[in-house]
Parts: sequence; structure tokens; C-alpha cells
Amino acid sequence: MAAEFPFKQWLVSSQSPAVEALLKAAAERDDVISFAGGLPADDLFPTAAMRETLEQVMADQGREALQYHWATGYEPLRAQILAMMRARGIAASDEELLITNGAQQALDLLARLLLRTGDPIGVESPTYVAALEVLRLQRPRMCPVARDAAGLDFDGLRRVLTDDRPNLVYLSPAGHNPTGGVLGQDARTELVALAHRHNSFFIEDDAYGKIQYNGPCPPLRAEAGSGERVLHIGSFSKVLTPGLRVGWLIAPKLLIDQLVLLKAAADLQTGSLSQIVLSTYLVEHDLEAHLDRCLEHYRKRRDAMLAALERELTGVLRWTRPSSGFSIWAELADGRASESVLATALRHGVVFEPGGAFFPADRPQQFLRLSFSNHTPAKIDEGIRRLATALRDA
Amino acid sequence: MAAEFPFKQWLVSSQSPAVEALLKAAAERDDVISFAGGLPADDLFPTAAMRETLEQVMADQGREALQYHWATGYEPLRAQILAMMRARGIAASDEELLITNGAQQALDLLARLLLRTGDPIGVESPTYVAALEVLRLQRPRMCPVARDAAGLDFDGLRRVLTDDRPNLVYLSPAGHNPTGGVLGQDARTELVALAHRHNSFFIEDDAYGKIQYNGPCPPLRAEAGSGERVLHIGSFSKVLTPGLRVGWLIAPKLLIDQLVLLKAAADLQTGSLSQIVLSTYLVEHDLEAHLDRCLEHYRKRRDAMLAALERELTGVLRWTRPSSGFSIWAELADGRASESVLATALRHGVVFEPGGAFFPADRPQQFLRLSFSNHTPAKIDEGIRRLATALRDA
Repeated sequence: MAAEFPFKQWLVSSQSPAVEALLKAAAERDDVISFAGGLPADDLFPTAAMRETLEQVMADQGREALQYHWATGYEPLRAQILAMMRARGIAASDEELLITNGAQQALDLLARLLLRTGDPIGVESPTYVAALEVLRLQRPRMCPVARDAAGLDFDGLRRVLTDDRPNLVYLSPAGHNPTGGVLGQDARTELVALAHRHNSFFIEDDAYGKIQYNGPCPPLRAEAGSGERVLHIGSFSKVLTPGLRVGWLIAPKLLIDQLVLLKAAADLQTGSLSQIVLSTYLVEHDLEAHLDRCLEHYRKRRDAMLAALERELTGVLRWTRPSSGFSIWAELADGRASESVLATALRHGVVFEPGGAFFPADRPQQFLRLSFSNHTPAKIDEGIRRLATALRDA
Repeated sequence: MAAEFPFKQWLVSSQSPAVEALLKAAAERDDVISFAGGLPADDLFPTAAMRETLEQVMADQGREALQYHWATGYEPLRAQILAMMRARGIAASDEELLITNGAQQALDLLARLLLRTGDPIGVESPTYVAALEVLRLQRPRMCPVARDAAGLDFDGLRRVLTDDRPNLVYLSPAGHNPTGGVLGQDARTELVALAHRHNSFFIEDDAYGKIQYNGPCPPLRAEAGSGERVLHIGSFSKVLTPGLRVGWLIAPKLLIDQLVLLKAAADLQTGSLSQIVLSTYLVEHDLEAHLDRCLEHYRKRRDAMLAALERELTGVLRWTRPSSGFSIWAELADGRASESVLATALRHGVVFEPGGAFFPADRPQQFLRLSFSNHTPAKIDEGIRRLATALRDA
């Protein structure tokens, strides 16, 4: 049968099937400590508040929560998101906003509208795996620009803009995944200037924009003159809950007009219940206070992992101190492929995310991402101890 | 600025902007009776049961409901959907199932995998507007096959299969929107034979498959030999609630393997809370009993509209009696364009869906779709009276 299928199997998973199988097996075992995945901490979810909120929504707006809504999104939530954006320095009108199924769908819709087969797109290297996956659906030509915890290779970016002339560049200025790097004011100013000079749209993935350990970082879209050139993607997934699948996109009206039609065609709308619950939560609860409490824990977890790495893995791994996000980006000092030690690590009861998949091209193999977000400091200590044993064993 | 945008505005809405504006205005006015849209009845939603279910989910599985899940979907819900499918005569394995954001996303994923620019696709004419919208995103060549309440033009289908050789045909055998037609056993047998003979995938949109007024109708995918050739799309939207955005797709494993990667890239996963709530509802409540109660009301509403049309609009409109679905498909006997009378109808406090948008090509203008699903019989009487006045006035 298979040979007759009139389609090419053109999609491949970012991690090898062997790695996928190991990580899925690990996720299902309680005795394994997984530093893969990079989930928000579920012990920090405002579960009780969400329970109350759901009760209130079903009591007051039950029918509305179960019915269809417009593709643009639930009006009160739209107003609340615009207010949150204003608090981050982003001036955007109602016509410049679209609610999506998380940040991921926002990127999918942008790529479907703006990226055709073979088009060049500038991407940081490394960058968020799932961003590469969704961009690859359009089969573009990836133009890598080096990024590390210290910053972005601006010479490389200028070269790409000049030589490849991409209409789109995908960036995470304020919370780079996997390195945890944060770009400063000078970099942001220069990025907006470059977007204008080269008539390019710069997509700002701000999913981790509020997960900051050195004080708030303004988004690129807050820069003067960014409104026409910076397409800002936000999400509730990292700051509140990913299970409701709500994110958003801020872009010029001319793009939003098209993206609304694309969104409606793709899945009609983002869930009504999800949107109404989020909107009600934002009225009844203080998201900023919740996030401050979470950040305190995330910082402790990050520091616990940094201390454990220092204690257990100095000389074996090299790593950088993340200013943002949920993970530490590391590399094996002896240059071994991280994938080659994953099975041994699993036998020792710990797993990590092999780093090759985060690169748009070339895929250097010695990197790994260690996520601290969803574990207590004690678990992190134990996991890094196991990893140290595994790396000596392998 | 606009002229510099490096993209073509290639998406257009199915209804004209004027019609869209009228319908949106109508939806926001309490004094207007809208027969457009085709929403499930929100007065029939099991709001109290859903409220209890949400309370239970948040008490027992709050963290899980707020966290990320795998792209394939929530395992218990997957098992329940497969059991529901078995009850409809569909034998499918766990590897042949994907959970999606409603039926709409299932169609989007299939089109993205299987349909390239310029590819021919067989489509019923008329057919579901939003199916045309999502298929058009791939810019295929539409090959219309006539369908009406009486059946499908099999000669036309054979001609398309022979001459255009489409790899994909999109059909709604058991609950055709907009006509409310249902294909019989002979037609289903012939469809499976044709799909095999021409090596084509037949997509079965079964969103209305359970909304039947003349007793149950088996889906095409229940036919012997359909497993390799029929791609079955189902949804909770019409039988329970659309606000949670959960549907599914049954297809051969080889396709599902690719579609899971596509789904993960497109939006990571369907909402965790939505899936867990549906799963828990299905354990604690009897969906079939709920649906039976709904069908009783839908039948009354359909009959009320048929009687009112008979009474008020004989000679002005022609219409067919739907065996399935939420709407009556009608045409203006004098051949006037239905769009041209919409503004007058709105002035009289009633609106409908102009029918041209339901056609993949040619767009005859005299048709209109009248949805009875979300109104009481009394409202339907009043709405049809208003429509009669409007049509005489216009």
C-alpha cells in the first residue's frame, strides 16, 4: 500500500527517532528526572484560582464559553492583552491584534502568509526548536545568524540582510531559547534600524519576555519606529498556563486583516472557554504578583542548577548563566555528541535535550539544554549528580 | 507604507465585505433574528454538567489540565473517541487517530500535507464554506461535483476522477452542509470503490454525521475496504460544544505519522483543559442521551421552519427538506441574488447566509441558507414572517 501513497513523507522530527523515543520513555517514568522539555512549573500553577475562575465563568457565562466566537478573539481578553502590551511599552491598536493558539500558531500564521517555498529567512543559530519546525513547513531557505548568551552576531545579521535579502527575520530578543540571553538597548535600537533599512519584517518571539532574572527587559516592539517592521508574538504559556493554548500576535493592520482570514480558515477560532477563563482570571487576580512569585522560584531553581553544575560537572561541561527563560545551555567540554550519552543518562535516571536540533543548519552535536523550570532545587541537585555519574560512565 | 509590504493580499473573505459587515452587525443586535451562522443551540448545551465536570477536573487533575501535553492528544480521550468510532462501525487503531482543534484543523492539516499549489481536488458543489476557505489556502484547482439534497452527481464525480485525476476529494456523505442531504448505502459503496479504482483519498467530513432526522446513517469510513482510502473527520462541536475546539481525524498510520509532526509544528497541541474536560464528561455523562434530547429539539425547529416557509414563502422561495444538519437550503424563485435582499432583510430584523459562497466556482446568486438550530420555534416563526415581508419589500 505505502508505495502507492501520492505524497512524499517530507516531514521529519527535529530530534532523531531514537532521541524522541528515549525522551518519551523518560517522561512516562516517575523515577527519571527530565531536564528536557522546558515545561513551566506545574507546582506553581495557580490551580486554586483557576478552579474558582472556571466555576465563576460556568456560572455566569456558561453558554458563551461553550459556543463559537469570532476568529479575532474574545473582545474583553483582546482589551486586556492590549493593556498588558501598553504596560510593556507597546502601543498597538485593536486592529493590530490577533489571538492565537499560543505563540506557536502565531508563528505558523505569519510563516504561511509571508514565507514561500525557497524564500530566505534570517534565524538565530541556535534558536527555539519548534520555531524551526514550523518555519520548515514553508520550506524556506534558512539564513543563520549566530546567537549566544552574550548576544547576537550583528555583522552576520548585516551580511544576511545584504546578501540574502530576507523579507523575514525570526528573533527572540528579550528571552532567547535555548541560551537564556537577553539583548540590550543598543542592540534593540540597531535591530529596528536594520529592519527599516532592509525593508524586512523582524518577528519578535517574546514568549519568555517576562521570564527575566535581571529586571524587566522591554520588548523590541516597544522601540520607537518598530510598529511597521516588528511583528510581536506573546503568550500566556510561560507566565500563567500553557494548557489553555492562548497566545497573540501584534502586527500592522494590513497583515492582521489577512491573518484573521488565515486563522479563521485554519481552525475557525481559539477556544472560547480558554479565552473567557483567561479574561476572567485577569480581572479577578493579579497576574504580575503571580509571576513575581514564580520568578522567585525560577531564580532559585536556576541558581540551584548553576551551583550543582559547578560542584559536579566543572571541566566536563561548559555552560552559560541564563538571564531569562527556563534552561541552561551547555556543551560537553570534550566535544562528544550529547546524543551519544543520552541512553546512558537515562539508565542513570536523568535526561536532557540534545542541542543539535536547535541549530538551523550544521547541527553541532556537543550541545545540550538543561531545563530547571519544573523541578525543585532538591530534584535539580539529584538530577545533576546523576548526570555527572552518567557523563563519567558513558 | 502599504505599497512596500512584500506580500500579496491573496486572502479574500468568502462573503463580500458588505455581507460580512451586515452579518456581524446583525449578530450583535438582540432584536435581529439571525438564520446565518448555523450555530449549535446554546440553550441545549449541558452547561450544568460541564460546570460540574470542570469542577471535578480542576479538583482532581488541575495541574495536568494547565500543563503541556503531547501533540497526539490526551490518551484517555483518544481511547474514548476510538470507542465512539467503533460504535459507528469504524474500526481504527490508536495509530490511525489524531486529535485536532475541531474538524476545521483536521481539514487544514490534511490539505497542508496532501495538496500542493495547482493540484486538482474534487469538491461537492455546493459545499461547506469554511472547507472551501481552508482548501483555498493551498491554492489548488477546484473540481466541482454537483450535490443537492437528493444526492451526488456520480457521473460528474467519475468524470472528475478520470479527467482531472485528483489525489483528494472532499465530501460530506452523511450530513451535507448546506443542503442537509444524506447519501445512502449504494452511494457509499460506490464511493469506496471509486476511491480505490482511482487511487484517490476521499476526505469524509462527518461533523454533522450524528445530526440525523431519519435515523442513524453509517459513515463512509465504516464501509468495508474504506480504511486505506477514506480520511474521516469528526468533531464534538455539533453534538456537544464547539467552544472547547476538539475534533479528530482518522487516517492510515503513514499519514498520521506525518500529520502529528505537522500538528506539533502548527500549534504544539490541542488544549489540555479542553481535552481532559471532554474526556471526563464522557465518563460521567451519557453523550448519546444528551444528543437524543438535542435532536428532538432540532427536529422541532426544522419542522417549525419548514411549516413557516410553507405558510409564508410558497412561490417566493423554493427549498428542500434537510435529513441532517442545522439548516434549510433555499433559492429565490424569481432568480434574484439573495445578497441583494440582505440589507432589506436586516432592516426587517432578520438575516440569512447568502448562498453563493458555498459554491467552489461560478457562484450562482439565488441561493440562501437558513439555519434553524439556535432558535426556538416561536423565534423561527417570527423570523420567517419578517423574511417574507422583507422579500416582498425588496
